[in-house]
Amino acid sequence: MILDTIRSPADLRRLSDDELATLAEEIRTFIVESVAVTGGHLGSNLGAVELTLAVHRVFDSPRDIVLWDTGHQAYVHKLVTGRMSRFPQLRQDGGLSGYPSRAESDHDWVENSHASTILSYAHGISTALALDDDPAQHDRRVVAVIGDGSMTGGMAYEALNNLGHSGRRVVIILNDNGRSYAPTISRLSEGLSRLRLNPSYVRQKERLEAAIRRVPGVGEHLDRARKGLETALREVLEPIAFFEALGVRYTGPIDGHDIAGLERALRDAAEFDGPIVVHVLTTKGLGYGPAEDDDEKHLHDVPVFDPATGPLRATDTPLTYTEAFTNALLQAAERDPKLVAITAAMPGPTGLLKCQERFPARIIDVGIAEQHAVTMAAGLAMGGMHPVVAVYSTFLTRAFDQTMYDVGLHGQKVVFCLDRAGITGDDGPSHHGVLDMAYLQKVPGMTIFAPSSAQELERMFDDALRLVDGPVAIRYPKGAARQVSPDEVGSGLRARRVRDGRDVCILAVGKLVEAAEEAALLLEREGVSATVWDARVVKPLDPAMLDDAARHPFVVTVEDGFRTGGIGMSMADAIAELDQHRESPPVLVLGVPDRFIPQAKPAVILARLGLDGPGIAASTLKALRSATSVDA
Amino acid sequence: MILDTIRSPADLRRLSDDELATLAEEIRTFIVESVAVTGGHLGSNLGAVELTLAVHRVFDSPRDIVLWDTGHQAYVHKLVTGRMSRFPQLRQDGGLSGYPSRAESDHDWVENSHASTILSYAHGISTALALDDDPAQHDRRVVAVIGDGSMTGGMAYEALNNLGHSGRRVVIILNDNGRSYAPTISRLSEGLSRLRLNPSYVRQKERLEAAIRRVPGVGEHLDRARKGLETALREVLEPIAFFEALGVRYTGPIDGHDIAGLERALRDAAEFDGPIVVHVLTTKGLGYGPAEDDDEKHLHDVPVFDPATGPLRATDTPLTYTEAFTNALLQAAERDPKLVAITAAMPGPTGLLKCQERFPARIIDVGIAEQHAVTMAAGLAMGGMHPVVAVYSTFLTRAFDQTMYDVGLHGQKVVFCLDRAGITGDDGPSHHGVLDMAYLQKVPGMTIFAPSSAQELERMFDDALRLVDGPVAIRYPKGAARQVSPDEVGSGLRARRVRDGRDVCILAVGKLVEAAEEAALLLEREGVSATVWDARVVKPLDPAMLDDAARHPFVVTVEDGFRTGGIGMSMADAIAELDQHRESPPVLVLGVPDRFIPQAKPAVILARLGLDGPGIAASTLKALRSATSVDA
Repeated sequence: MILDTIRSPADLRRLSDDELATLAEEIRTFIVESVAVTGGHLGSNLGAVELTLAVHRVFDSPRDIVLWDTGHQAYVHKLVTGRMSRFPQLRQDGGLSGYPSRAESDHDWVENSHASTILSYAHGISTALALDDDPAQHDRRVVAVIGDGSMTGGMAYEALNNLGHSGRRVVIILNDNGRSYAPTISRLSEGLSRLRLNPSYVRQKERLEAAIRRVPGVGEHLDRARKGLETALREVLEPIAFFEALGVRYTGPIDGHDIAGLERALRDAAEFDGPIVVHVLTTKGLGYGPAEDDDEKHLHDVPVFDPATGPLRATDTPLTYTEAFTNALLQAAERDPKLVAITAAMPGPTGLLKCQERFPARIIDVGIAEQHAVTMAAGLAMGGMHPVVAVYSTFLTRAFDQTMYDVGLHGQKVVFCLDRAGITGDDGPSHHGVLDMAYLQKVPGMTIFAPSSAQELERMFDDALRLVDGPVAIRYPKGAARQVSPDEVGSGLRARRVRDGRDVCILAVGKLVEAAEEAALLLEREGVSATVWDARVVKPLDPAMLDDAARHPFVVTVEDGFRTGGIGMSMADAIAELDQHRESPPVLVLGVPDRFIPQAKPAVILARLGLDGPGIAASTLKALRSATSVDA
Repeated sequence: MILDTIRSPADLRRLSDDELATLAEEIRTFIVESVAVTGGHLGSNLGAVELTLAVHRVFDSPRDIVLWDTGHQAYVHKLVTGRMSRFPQLRQDGGLSGYPSRAESDHDWVENSHASTILSYAHGISTALALDDDPAQHDRRVVAVIGDGSMTGGMAYEALNNLGHSGRRVVIILNDNGRSYAPTISRLSEGLSRLRLNPSYVRQKERLEAAIRRVPGVGEHLDRARKGLETALREVLEPIAFFEALGVRYTGPIDGHDIAGLERALRDAAEFDGPIVVHVLTTKGLGYGPAEDDDEKHLHDVPVFDPATGPLRATDTPLTYTEAFTNALLQAAERDPKLVAITAAMPGPTGLLKCQERFPARIIDVGIAEQHAVTMAAGLAMGGMHPVVAVYSTFLTRAFDQTMYDVGLHGQKVVFCLDRAGITGDDGPSHHGVLDMAYLQKVPGMTIFAPSSAQELERMFDDALRLVDGPVAIRYPKGAARQVSPDEVGSGLRARRVRDGRDVCILAVGKLVEAAEEAALLLEREGVSATVWDARVVKPLDPAMLDDAARHPFVVTVEDGFRTGGIGMSMADAIAELDQHRESPPVLVLGVPDRFIPQAKPAVILARLGLDGPGIAASTLKALRSATSVDA
C-alpha cells in the first residue's frame, strides 16, 4: 500500500498523479474499515480526502500552519502526519483523539470542536507571525479549513471582518459539501449553491463574462441595464461580493476531488497578499455509498458497523432521552398551536425531525447560531409564542449572555431542552455537558429540571409548559433512558424521596439517581442506612428535600455536573442556611472535578470520577468514618 | 413649548414641517439640560432626534413594534412616549431607566443593553406575528434600529442571515454615525463610509447609473469591462451586495437629519415584503458642540456637567482602577515587546489609549466582537505573543464558551483584564459585573485575581504576566481605587492577612476588603474580635488562608459577585473538605443575591445588599448569635 509509506506530509510530495489517486482510494478504504470498528465521523472525512492531500502537498506543515474548524474532518490529516498505526484506538479511552490534538502532533494546533472558531485562531496566529521580531516567521503561511455550515456562525463573520480589515495573509478554504450537519440554513449558502449548481459558472472568468453579457445596451437603455446588473449581481456575484465587502478576496468554486486543480488554486491563493477564500466543492461521504446517500446524517458520527452493509438503524434499541423528548414535544405541539421549536443546525440529533414532518412551520433551524437562537426565542415569546430551544448542553455555553440578559432579564418563558447533558464520552472535553447547571442557576428566575427517567422527562416537559413562569431548562443525558412505572414519577417543582434511611441522606441529580440508589444498596451491606432523594428540580431546590436532609446526621450530594459552584454546593449552602449555621449536618459534595475530562465511554468516565454506585458508596463510607472519628 | 404637547406618538403626526423642526431643537435643548443634571448618554441621543421623530410618525407604536439596539439611544423615544416628566430622575435610584424598560411603557419591548441583539429579537417577534392565528397580527410592522458599531457583532450577522432566509418583514434602520463607541473596526463600515463620503453616490439610482457607466465597451473589450465591473463592485456596490447576499434588501444612504426624507424612505421600506435595511447617516451629538467634537467619547456616557462649557476632564479626580491598569500595561508593554492588548470596541473606557499612542501595532480593536476577541487571543498566544484581553466584566459573558474551550482547553496564557467588575450602578441590571468569578472559576487551570487597591492591581498584573501559567483573569471595579502603602500589598498566589482576631474570620474579595475592615472595627465595638483576610486570588484559593479560617469558630465570606455558586461557596466547601467534615466552623456566605439588580449608585446598592461595612457587621453578628444560641 502507498498509504504505508506516508510517514509525514513530505512523503506526499514525491507521488505521481496516479499514485495520489491510488492513495486517495486506499485512504477511503482505510477510513471506512477503521471507523467500522471504532465508530467516528465518516462522511465529513471521506469528503475531505483529496482536499487534505492537496493542502499537505502545497503547504509545508508544521512550518505552515494548517487549522481545521470542527476538527472531526481531520482524520486524513492525522493519517498523513504519522498517526495511521493509532487508528484502531480512535476515540477510545487513552487512544487517538477524534479531533486534532496538540499532545499528539506538531501538525495539530487547535483541538476545538465547537464550530465557527477557526478564522479567529487564524487571525490571532497570523497577527502573531506578522508582529514577530524574527523575519523568518513572516513567511509562514496560515491555512484555515472551514465548512459551509460553520459559516453561519457569527464568530466566523466577526473573524472575516477582522481579517479583511487587518489584511492578514490567511488562506481560508471553504469546504462546501452543501450539507454539513443539517441542510444549511443560510441565504449565503443559497448563493453558494447557485454557484455550484450552474455548470456554466464553474470558473470565475466565465462567470464574470456571463454577468457582463447580461447587461444589455449599457448607457443606452438604462432601466434595462440596471435591472440586468441587479440580476447579475443578485444571482451570480452575491457570494463573491459578500466576501469582498468584508475585505476578503474570493476564488472558486474549485472541484474538491481534483487534486491537481486544488493544488493550482491553493498555490495561487498562497501568493495572495491578504486574506483569501478558496471555495471548494466536496461531496460528503464520497466513495462509500451509504455515506454519500446519508441525507439524515446517520453517518455524521457513527457507532460501530459492518462496512459491507453500512450502519443500520437498529429497531430494538432502548428508548433514549432524546426520543422521550421527541414524543413529549410532538404531543405538546399537537395540543398547543403556539408551540414552536428552534434548533441551531441540529434538528436530527436533538430529536426534532418527527415534529418537523408534522408541523414544518413550527420547527425553526437557525444554522450554527446559538446566540441568535436564544434571543430569537425571547422575541418569539414576546410575540406570544411558546418557544422551545433544543440544543446540546455544551453548545448553550455559547449563548450564556443571551440566556441571562435576553431571556432571563426579560423573564420570558423559553423552554431550553438540553440534550447530551453530563458526561458524553467519545468526543472528549469540549463535548461534555457538565457546565449547564452551574451557569444556568445564575440566571435569576430560571427553573431547572433534571429527569432521571424517560417518564420524568415527559412529565417535566409538560410541567415546564403548563406550570412554570419564566425561563425553564430541562437537561438530560445522551443515550438510553431509564424506564419507570407511573408511581415512580414526581410532579411540579417537588423533589421525590425514593428511599428511606437513617444514617445518611443522598441528594441525587438526574441520571445519577440510579447510581445513588445502587450506592444505597451497597451501603446497606456495610450497615449504613441511606435515604435517597431524586432532586428533580435543581433550581429552585425543594425545601421539603432540604428539611429532610438536614434531619440526617450526614448528607451526600451527587451530580454529573461541574462540582465547583454547582448544584451540590448550593444544596450544602441551603442546608447550612436552614439551620442558621447551628448544628448543620456535614455535606459531602460529589461532582465532576475541576479539569478537562478526556474521551472514554461515559460509564468508564463516571466510574473513574467516583460517580457510579460503588464510587458514591465508597466516598460516602470514607467521609462518614472520618466525620464520626475522634479528632487525631 | 411644542414638546410639552407631545403625550404620545400620535401627537407628532399633526405637526407641520416647521413645528417638527422647532420640536427637534426643543428636544436637543431638553436632553442637554437634562443630562447635565443627571448624567447619561448624550451624543447618541442628540444624533437620533430626527430619526426617532420620523419613526414615530411613520409607524404606529405600540401596535407597530419599535426596537432599539443598545437602548441608550432611546431618550427621544422616551420623551415622545409620555415620559418627559420623569427625566429629572433619569438613571437615578428608582427613577427612569437609561434604557427602554418594559415596566415603564407599552412602547418599550427590549431593555437589553448588550449590543448586536436587536435583529434577533426582530426575527423572533416578526416570526411570531406571521405564525399568529389572528390575521390582525399579520400587518403589525417590526422596526429595529441598530448602530453601525453593533453591525460588527456576529449575532447581527446571524440574524441578518436568518431574516434573509426566512423573508420576514422587518425594517432595519442602520443608524450610521460613523463612530459608535470607537471608530468602527470593520471593512463593511469602510464600504459604508465610502458611500457617505462620495456625494455623487448619495442616491441609489445615481449610484447604480454610475456603476454601469463605468463598464466601458461591454462585450467588446472584455478585460477592461471585467476590470471596470470589479472596480464598480468593490468601491460602490459592496455594502449593498453584502446585505443583498444575505437576502436583505438595501436602501440608502438617507440624510438622518432630514425628517421629510426619512419619512419617505421609511414609508417605502414599510411596503417592502421582506427584510430591508434603511441606511441612515446621522451626526452624533448634533446641535451641541462639545458632543459633536467628542472624538474620544467623553460624551458617550457623561457624568453631571455644566451645559454652557460642556463636561471637562477633571484633573484632580482620584486614581481609578482603570488608570492603575493603564499604568501597569504601559510599563509591561515597554519591557515586553511580545505583549499585545485586545479590545472589543472599547479602547478608551478600558484604558488602552495611552498604550495605543505609544505602541499602535500592539493594541488590536476587533469591534463589538467579544467571541472573536477571546479566540483571537488564544491564536496570538499560540503564535508566541503575550495577549491581554481588556473587557468589561459584563461583556465577557458573551465569550464564556471561547474562554472555556478556546483559551482554557488549550491552556493558553491569555490575561483577561475585567473592568467594571462587581456592582456598577447607573446602567442597571445588564451592566453589573457580578458573574465573572462564578463562571470563570469553572475554567480548569484559570487563575483569578481580585485586587483591593491600585497597588494590588499593578502587582497582580505583573505577577500574572511573570508567574502564572495558563489563563489568568484580574477583575476590578469601576471608579476610584484604594491607595495603600507598599507593605499593604501581597504577592504571587498568596492571600494576605490584614487583621488578626479570634471570634470570627472574614474572607473578603477585592473591593469589599475595605468594607470587611470597616465591619471588623464595628464588630470590635460589639466585643467581637475579627480576623480579616484579603483573598487576593479567588482561584486557586490560598490553603494558608483556608487553614487559618478553619481555626476560627466562625467564618464569613464577602464578595461583590453572584452568591450562588460563587467564590464564597467554594471557600465554604474548601474549609469543610479541609476538616474532612469534622468540626468545620460554620461559614456565612455573603454576596449578590439571585435576582437582577436595578440601577442606583454602587454604594447605595452595596449597602442595600448588606455588602458595606455596617451590613457585613450586622449579618455577622446575627449569624454568630444564632450559631451560638441554644437550640429552640
